[in-house]
Amino acid sequence: MTVRFGLLGAGRIGKVHAKAVTSNPLARLVAVADAFPKAASDLATQYGAEVRSIEEIEAASDIDAVVICTPTDTHADLIERFARAGKAIFCEKPIDLDVERVKACLKVVDAEGGTLMVGFNRRFDPHFQAVKSAIAEGQIGDVEMITIVSRDPGAPPVDYIKRSGGIFRDMTIHDLDMARFLLGEEVDTVTAFGSVLVDKAIGEAGDYDSASLILTTASGKHATISNSRRATYGYDQRIEVHGSKGSVAAENQRPVSIEIANGNGYTRPPLHDFFMTRYTEAYAREISAFIDCVESKSPASPSGVDGLIALALADAALKSVKEGRAIKVSEITGAMADKSVFQGR
Amino acid sequence: MTVRFGLLGAGRIGKVHAKAVTSNPLARLVAVADAFPKAASDLATQYGAEVRSIEEIEAASDIDAVVICTPTDTHADLIERFARAGKAIFCEKPIDLDVERVKACLKVVDAEGGTLMVGFNRRFDPHFQAVKSAIAEGQIGDVEMITIVSRDPGAPPVDYIKRSGGIFRDMTIHDLDMARFLLGEEVDTVTAFGSVLVDKAIGEAGDYDSASLILTTASGKHATISNSRRATYGYDQRIEVHGSKGSVAAENQRPVSIEIANGNGYTRPPLHDFFMTRYTEAYAREISAFIDCVESKSPASPSGVDGLIALALADAALKSVKEGRAIKVSEITGAMADKSVFQGR
Amino acid sequence: MTVRFGLLGAGRIGKVHAKAVTSNPLARLVAVADAFPKAASDLATQYGAEVRSIEEIEAASDIDAVVICTPTDTHADLIERFARAGKAIFCEKPIDLDVERVKACLKVVDAEGGTLMVGFNRRFDPHFQAVKSAIAEGQIGDVEMITIVSRDPGAPPVDYIKRSGGIFRDMTIHDLDMARFLLGEEVDTVTAFGSVLVDKAIGEAGDYDSASLILTTASGKHATISNSRRATYGYDQRIEVHGSKGSVAAENQRPVSIEIANGNGYTRPPLHDFFMTRYTEAYAREISAFIDCVESKSPASPSGVDGLIALALADAALKSVKEGRAIKVSEITGAMADKSVFQGR
Amino acid sequence: MTVRFGLLGAGRIGKVHAKAVTSNPLARLVAVADAFPKAASDLATQYGAEVRSIEEIEAASDIDAVVICTPTDTHADLIERFARAGKAIFCEKPIDLDVERVKACLKVVDAEGGTLMVGFNRRFDPHFQAVKSAIAEGQIGDVEMITIVSRDPGAPPVDYIKRSGGIFRDMTIHDLDMARFLLGEEVDTVTAFGSVLVDKAIGEAGDYDSASLILTTASGKHATISNSRRATYGYDQRIEVHGSKGSVAAENQRPVSIEIANGNGYTRPPLHDFFMTRYTEAYAREISAFIDCVESKSPASPSGVDGLIALALADAALKSVKEGRAIKVSEITGAMADKSVFQGR
Repeated sequence: MTVRFGLLGAGRIGKVHAKAVTSNPLARLVAVADAFPKAASDLATQYGAEVRSIEEIEAASDIDAVVICTPTDTHADLIERFARAGKAIFCEKPIDLDVERVKACLKVVDAEGGTLMVGFNRRFDPHFQAVKSAIAEGQIGDVEMITIVSRDPGAPPVDYIKRSGGIFRDMTIHDLDMARFLLGEEVDTVTAFGSVLVDKAIGEAGDYDSASLILTTASGKHATISNSRRATYGYDQRIEVHGSKGSVAAENQRPVSIEIANGNGYTRPPLHDFFMTRYTEAYAREISAFIDCVESKSPASPSGVDGLIALALADAALKSVKEGRAIKVSEITGAMADKSVFQGR
Repeated sequence: MTVRFGLLGAGRIGKVHAKAVTSNPLARLVAVADAFPKAASDLATQYGAEVRSIEEIEAASDIDAVVICTPTDTHADLIERFARAGKAIFCEKPIDLDVERVKACLKVVDAEGGTLMVGFNRRFDPHFQAVKSAIAEGQIGDVEMITIVSRDPGAPPVDYIKRSGGIFRDMTIHDLDMARFLLGEEVDTVTAFGSVLVDKAIGEAGDYDSASLILTTASGKHATISNSRRATYGYDQRIEVHGSKGSVAAENQRPVSIEIANGNGYTRPPLHDFFMTRYTEAYAREISAFIDCVESKSPASPSGVDGLIALALADAALKSVKEGRAIKVSEITGAMADKSVFQGR
Repeated sequence: MTVRFGLLGAGRIGKVHAKAVTSNPLARLVAVADAFPKAASDLATQYGAEVRSIEEIEAASDIDAVVICTPTDTHADLIERFARAGKAIFCEKPIDLDVERVKACLKVVDAEGGTLMVGFNRRFDPHFQAVKSAIAEGQIGDVEMITIVSRDPGAPPVDYIKRSGGIFRDMTIHDLDMARFLLGEEVDTVTAFGSVLVDKAIGEAGDYDSASLILTTASGKHATISNSRRATYGYDQRIEVHGSKGSVAAENQRPVSIEIANGNGYTRPPLHDFFMTRYTEAYAREISAFIDCVESKSPASPSGVDGLIALALADAALKSVKEGRAIKVSEITGAMADKSVFQGR
Repeated sequence: MTVRFGLLGAGRIGKVHAKAVTSNPLARLVAVADAFPKAASDLATQYGAEVRSIEEIEAASDIDAVVICTPTDTHADLIERFARAGKAIFCEKPIDLDVERVKACLKVVDAEGGTLMVGFNRRFDPHFQAVKSAIAEGQIGDVEMITIVSRDPGAPPVDYIKRSGGIFRDMTIHDLDMARFLLGEEVDTVTAFGSVLVDKAIGEAGDYDSASLILTTASGKHATISNSRRATYGYDQRIEVHGSKGSVAAENQRPVSIEIANGNGYTRPPLHDFFMTRYTEAYAREISAFIDCVESKSPASPSGVDGLIALALADAALKSVKEGRAIKVSEITGAMADKSVFQGR
């Protein structure tokens, strides 16, 4: 069976997913929709697909699955529409910036029995997957302490931060998901500190550009996250998991691995300077995993609930900064009227 | 302009080039030929190309360039035919195992004014290119001594070795080309030692599985090459260039870069175990460079003459092993009736 | 001038300091005292010194300085006695486990105008000193975030933990001092989490074996500390300082730096397995620094106040674990009647 | 038993050995001799030894062993004198620059049944010893190919080169000995190339500053050596041994191991810039091994014959450069009238 795709949103990340879909022998890109007709038609032409409206894709009998790459504030609505239309859904993170809206959306998906995968691309990075595998194989014994260092090469424009929900919801959320992915146990408390060291304008917009977090679990595991919006040496993405029998670490990646030695010492080039080049392979593997799950009708992972929990952790972090104390995650998720959204896990 | 391609040979390396051609927005794969009809049709179908015979491709007005991936003993003939047919030619190395046959072939290409690029893929590896760039930028001053370590994960079947021309012509030849590429000066003498340490059958077939070489240039630069048909830890491919102001080295590549620490120490995974995964990016860049050169009608590099010289160096190495002395490269190339083949350089 | 030394305590760490004193051309070891006569006489004999009682050393006119390596609960009393006796004092950390006792002791030293250096040996490690120098030279711009990972090869006996004041006072205290040393700004808040993952007996003794901390400063800098009493791969001691213009990190040290490659990958040996071999050079440099300071009559660093503040940070950490909130360091140090102890800084 | 030492030569290397002797609890430095009285008395005073003449040391009943650190041209004579005087002898390399003189000297030592250890300090480097141990433990299977890169930070004065016997006898000789040490089989042929790339004055003095060598053994093992008198990044000393089951490598050593990351990339400091700091530990272990051998009356290693063979390999290298061919080592050693010097091995 070939999975037939509609792509919603032909921007930067839409192009990445279009390439992943068309490179996969089990998939076909049938249609592209975008608010900008030229963006849609350029991408459709490149890959021999058609331009269609969202409504046409929704109604199309020749489309099995959609990839949602539209602006964040449209995600939840589109997920609900396409769940009702019976399409399998891959949606870029986040589902929404509001936990209650996410919960409502997931109820719709749940009611329709639909497939929803959320785009935490880092779970598909080959190096982080190798960390996960090493843990699963018992190579480090029981997981005890995780250290995540995650720094962007530079701060985004303040306008972006205003829309993104701030550092915890747009940046740390990846690390929060990764911590959950590797801890093998739900996070119980979140403690966070934020400060403004990089760009005063970020502070004026009410956000932080430097953050440190400690997550704890009920059994006493710890995860530490260190974030900065600035790293002169490139896109710094390191994970280390310390366990009872050993430790496993994923090193930083650089586009070119040479070393130049001279009187100043030994110098290796900077890291990747952009998430798209750093995570090229992760994006390809992510769509492959989605195609596999649609084909095999198996549950999607990371699921909508994974998206919800990561958002709740980000909210807990923000609350912790404001209140100067450890926040029980249940303070955020406890407000959920219906815990059934977790049932699918 | 789009460069329209015919692919000759749909085997392992043909598939790699087919993917590179179809991924390039400036190129189109029009036809595939192979002695095995099913191999040709499978590959053609996957990329929306036609199956054609070699004769049809030769005569086709809708084909600008060919990629020759057929068995080695057909290369020289095909190059001559397609040069006469006015097609730009990319040919997998070697042109032929016999220096005189290569010279004759290059004369034909030269006479037709054709474009011929020879597949020394390693020149396009991003890491080795970065080494070359560092030299070109003057970061290490004058090149003085090059150290190349090149080891295969395992020995090929003896049958392959019988056809391949032996370790110097099938394996060392890549390192000889790389040494020339980086020395920036022609090799003057070749001294080589060969022994059989890995597989007695290789010795019985008259070849070696372990080799050490020293190349010298007229100005006194040295290059050292260390080859083995066995490396339990993967495909070992290292280059280091020592210069008057510093040194630059390209490190080994591994598919996954994690590190596991425990009581045994700190362990990183083995290297790539296959040239195709090690040089994935090099193959893609190689075809891109060929397309650029066809499009811009600029001289191909590495050229047919580069292929000829690398072969002559391999022949010199073999002669050195047999005679136990340094061989002047001019002893091999001096027999050329017509030095004009070097004019294009 | 030669600095003439009395050594109080001929145990494990006493031997280390005896070697450092006798290796230094500016110093001489005159006398050794120990509650166990044989320990004192063995060490004295080895280095041509005399065995004397503490009282004799106190009264000796041929002794300028003492090194205190006796059990912790004797430190404060001995410091006071030798300060009154006009000897320069090097004391192993901690001065005492009780902040108020430390303050009282420092007042005596202050009143006598004496020289007191506290043994935070890691400040003298050549690698950490190079980190400090890189910061001082402006190589990374303004310090923003510090990450310290500090893990012991194995947990000490529970008896030791009962006497030592627990993980924060015997182990984390080194990292707390290092954070202060590198932050270049006093710590404002301490948040800590502790759990028992390694040895239940430690938990039963009321202590933790795994701890994570975040320190913040008034200007918004963060330091993260990750501690464990277990590391199968050796004595894990890493520091990384992230700044506005770059980052500097001190790598782990191992006694032997070879790498073995085979089918399992590339393996380097484990780290040092003991603080004495890891910090051999630091111990030697530490005593040299003390000798320099005695000779030049310059202020000792790290000072008694440095010892006091590190202890206060450890106390704040413990309070934070118990109360689940960020502790203002002034909550601990604010109780000090007389802030004048800080004047010497 | 305590080994009582006389030290001949109180220069740079004499001081290193004096420290090693006095630090060893099994040894005592009794006397120091030097042509410059002040050099002798300064060193003797520092370590509580006496100044004596060479004749007095020769005749002394309270001296068991001597360390010869005098100029090279006195070594062979002194070895003979002290062998006749019944002292155990540690002599800095080389015994002499002339193979025949060395052979004559060793016959005297042999006739007296004396103990003679030659100072190939690198055999005692902990990292190279770990390489040797890994081989001995079978971790890499059978040794097949050795790669040694050995580069000095800068060229010595031409005057030194004139006295030293040239690059092969003063610099490469260490690598030749190391190759023998690790090959586990005698070298059969030596092929060498030399050129002048660093300092023309070296060429004018008839020597080379850049050299590449290939050694082969009868069973087909290869060792490659790459030497330069220039390395802007410090004292480059690397060894890699490739075997049938894997590979082991000793990495370069640097005094400080930090890494600074910024927009230029990741930079580690240069290597040691001097053999004495690079091989500090090796010098200490070397003297310990000599003391052990004197104490236990076991054969010294490296022996006088090891010194002889290394010199013969250096001579073979020089001959190879001059004649442009592989030199059988037996061409050099075959001239030995009496092979019995090898019997002690």
